[in-house]
Amino acid sequence: MPGSRPFVSLATDFGAAYTGICAGVVYSIAPAATVLVLSDEITPYAVAEGAMLLRQALPYVPVGVHVGIVDPGVGTRRLPVAVETGRGDVLVGPDNGLLVPAAEALGGVVRAHVLENAAYRLPAVSASFHGRDIFSPAAAHIAMGVDVAELGPPAEPLPLDVPSPAVAPGAVTAPILYTDRFGSLVLNAAPDELDAAFGPLEYGTPLELSWPGGGRAVRVTFEETFGGVAPGEPLVWVDSSGRLGLAVNQGSAAGRFGLREPGAVTLRRAD
Amino acid sequence: MPGSRPFVSLATDFGAAYTGICAGVVYSIAPAATVLVLSDEITPYAVAEGAMLLRQALPYVPVGVHVGIVDPGVGTRRLPVAVETGRGDVLVGPDNGLLVPAAEALGGVVRAHVLENAAYRLPAVSASFHGRDIFSPAAAHIAMGVDVAELGPPAEPLPLDVPSPAVAPGAVTAPILYTDRFGSLVLNAAPDELDAAFGPLEYGTPLELSWPGGGRAVRVTFEETFGGVAPGEPLVWVDSSGRLGLAVNQGSAAGRFGLREPGAVTLRRAD
Amino acid sequence: MPGSRPFVSLATDFGAAYTGICAGVVYSIAPAATVLVLSDEITPYAVAEGAMLLRQALPYVPVGVHVGIVDPGVGTRRLPVAVETGRGDVLVGPDNGLLVPAAEALGGVVRAHVLENAAYRLPAVSASFHGRDIFSPAAAHIAMGVDVAELGPPAEPLPLDVPSPAVAPGAVTAPILYTDRFGSLVLNAAPDELDAAFGPLEYGTPLELSWPGGGRAVRVTFEETFGGVAPGEPLVWVDSSGRLGLAVNQGSAAGRFGLREPGAVTLRRAD
Repeated sequence: MPGSRPFVSLATDFGAAYTGICAGVVYSIAPAATVLVLSDEITPYAVAEGAMLLRQALPYVPVGVHVGIVDPGVGTRRLPVAVETGRGDVLVGPDNGLLVPAAEALGGVVRAHVLENAAYRLPAVSASFHGRDIFSPAAAHIAMGVDVAELGPPAEPLPLDVPSPAVAPGAVTAPILYTDRFGSLVLNAAPDELDAAFGPLEYGTPLELSWPGGGRAVRVTFEETFGGVAPGEPLVWVDSSGRLGLAVNQGSAAGRFGLREPGAVTLRRAD
Repeated sequence: MPGSRPFVSLATDFGAAYTGICAGVVYSIAPAATVLVLSDEITPYAVAEGAMLLRQALPYVPVGVHVGIVDPGVGTRRLPVAVETGRGDVLVGPDNGLLVPAAEALGGVVRAHVLENAAYRLPAVSASFHGRDIFSPAAAHIAMGVDVAELGPPAEPLPLDVPSPAVAPGAVTAPILYTDRFGSLVLNAAPDELDAAFGPLEYGTPLELSWPGGGRAVRVTFEETFGGVAPGEPLVWVDSSGRLGLAVNQGSAAGRFGLREPGAVTLRRAD
Repeated sequence: MPGSRPFVSLATDFGAAYTGICAGVVYSIAPAATVLVLSDEITPYAVAEGAMLLRQALPYVPVGVHVGIVDPGVGTRRLPVAVETGRGDVLVGPDNGLLVPAAEALGGVVRAHVLENAAYRLPAVSASFHGRDIFSPAAAHIAMGVDVAELGPPAEPLPLDVPSPAVAPGAVTAPILYTDRFGSLVLNAAPDELDAAFGPLEYGTPLELSWPGGGRAVRVTFEETFGGVAPGEPLVWVDSSGRLGLAVNQGSAAGRFGLREPGAVTLRRAD
């Protein structure tokens, strides 16, 4: 980790200003660091959305120290942790499942430690802003070469708690994980589940989309890209993170269908 | 372009997270680069807004590699391109007109090449996230010193497709290009069109503003700054990019008049 | 201030694009600078919100040149200033009170100068974008080692104009300063005012919240953290900047009570 120019990323649900304060803390401790704000606009308290973002993004970001903060339990007993990955990164954040899917995508959890050592916190720790007082200073000290074992006792990170997809012959029911900036719904299902339900699906295949309380099923097509359907038309596709998505070309699927997380949709082959 | 610290900027309609992934790709290939996120909040799919932003911003940004991505045609046949400018920049993005007004403001298009060479793409190219897989790696390699001609065959960039203003004695009809963060409407007209319609206009001159379906004309004044009218009052002014704008001092012209792009407004001298 | 890697921060109500242009101007003049966008999403024209953000954030940011821009008076006679602090920072922005609370938190105002010297502005100064044409170039030149006295004549910065809290035995009336991203209301009152009204308050103490036109008083509790109440329940707490806040755990106090700035709330001990 130590080097001529250590790399630190930040992904939070704080908005710009509080994320900027975290970056300021990192620069104060590690002035030579390259600091990348990966996102400051995760939906507030949306742990699954943040976890999916980190899992999707970090494989494309340099090996470094990556702070992830979506922390509805700040001020409660949830632990602050640092998680070392097989690729050589250290992920820093609350132990609420946020970091684990990304760690798995980066070679797995090698070891994890609780952020307990006061030497690597700010002198005064507030009850509500652990991003500033605990996570950012820990990340900066790790970026400066402190070993994660120095931070506190070993920990076993908690997994992310999200509902699983349900597969039956001719049908997939997929939980909605989150809504992206374009209003597309990201589903907790992958091409494997489509294959298991339908066998190999060609692009252009029509499917029927339904959900509890949604009334009559809606016709959508399975496409490689948004451009496979006309503007304003819905589609199901595999997004750039390898996950099933429900979108409207140049529009918002969330707005069109009135859907959001938590919730689930069912896809069936259209007759 | 190569130097001790190459400069890369990013302007997208992706929001923070996907833009952060693009920055991560740039840092992975060009670790010493200075990376500036010029904007991650262009209105989704608003090519004209993005083009005007790049044209307005890039003259104030260091010479470097500038990625612009507003790409409703991702996954279709539109080409990915790199455009070298007279000032020495390289603009990288989709060939949909987004980059051309900026290139003209930076000394014109010197040469352009299609981003075709797989050596300068990520190993796997998705159908929907060319920002990550094609544009960002190309930009990073160019920042590291790769000549644009190495990227692929020559291209002739397409111009931006926006409606023109219409000038008649005593009247200017100006298309709305986009709405800015403050709710001001940026018009595709410049002081030249005002001069052609009205002759020299003094600050404080009243004008009549009308638009199709807008009912009775609204009185606005031509002002040098927002402060020329009382808070809540509308004005026409020349914005910091040299373009006509319709604003409300400390308010939103878009909200007040119910106007947005596409659409056009007509200005006439008030009696 | 001069050093191998000067530090410049930017906090504005401009949104990403115009803030990105300001960063571009800084890099053009001071290519080796570390530039941190502390915030680009201050509520437009909200001087008090911006002032509180700078006061809260800058103590956690490295000593450097810090640009703050919330400038409803751009284009009027308000002065552009640079304010040197006891800690050794220079704050740059409009002389409308925005910078003064932060300067006080950074060791006080040591000296201040008007940004008048054309050598440290861009060659053409627009009427509406002083962030680009005056503030950013001044900041970059100061970061490069120019003494603030070179910028123009001395100035006496204007204080921030915000209403004060009112304390009586058993009651505190606190003006609302701004609404944060989570919908929490930040109040212009501190624990001192609570002590003066109520004596020492234990966590868990119930209080009655009322406001003009708000009807019957609402029961809230004074808590150390959001986790002190169930999700959806309101609380009063001391935020990470040492200021009283009114929040709803995992919800929005602004939305729940229909409150926003300007305005004030009164807290009384519940029977």
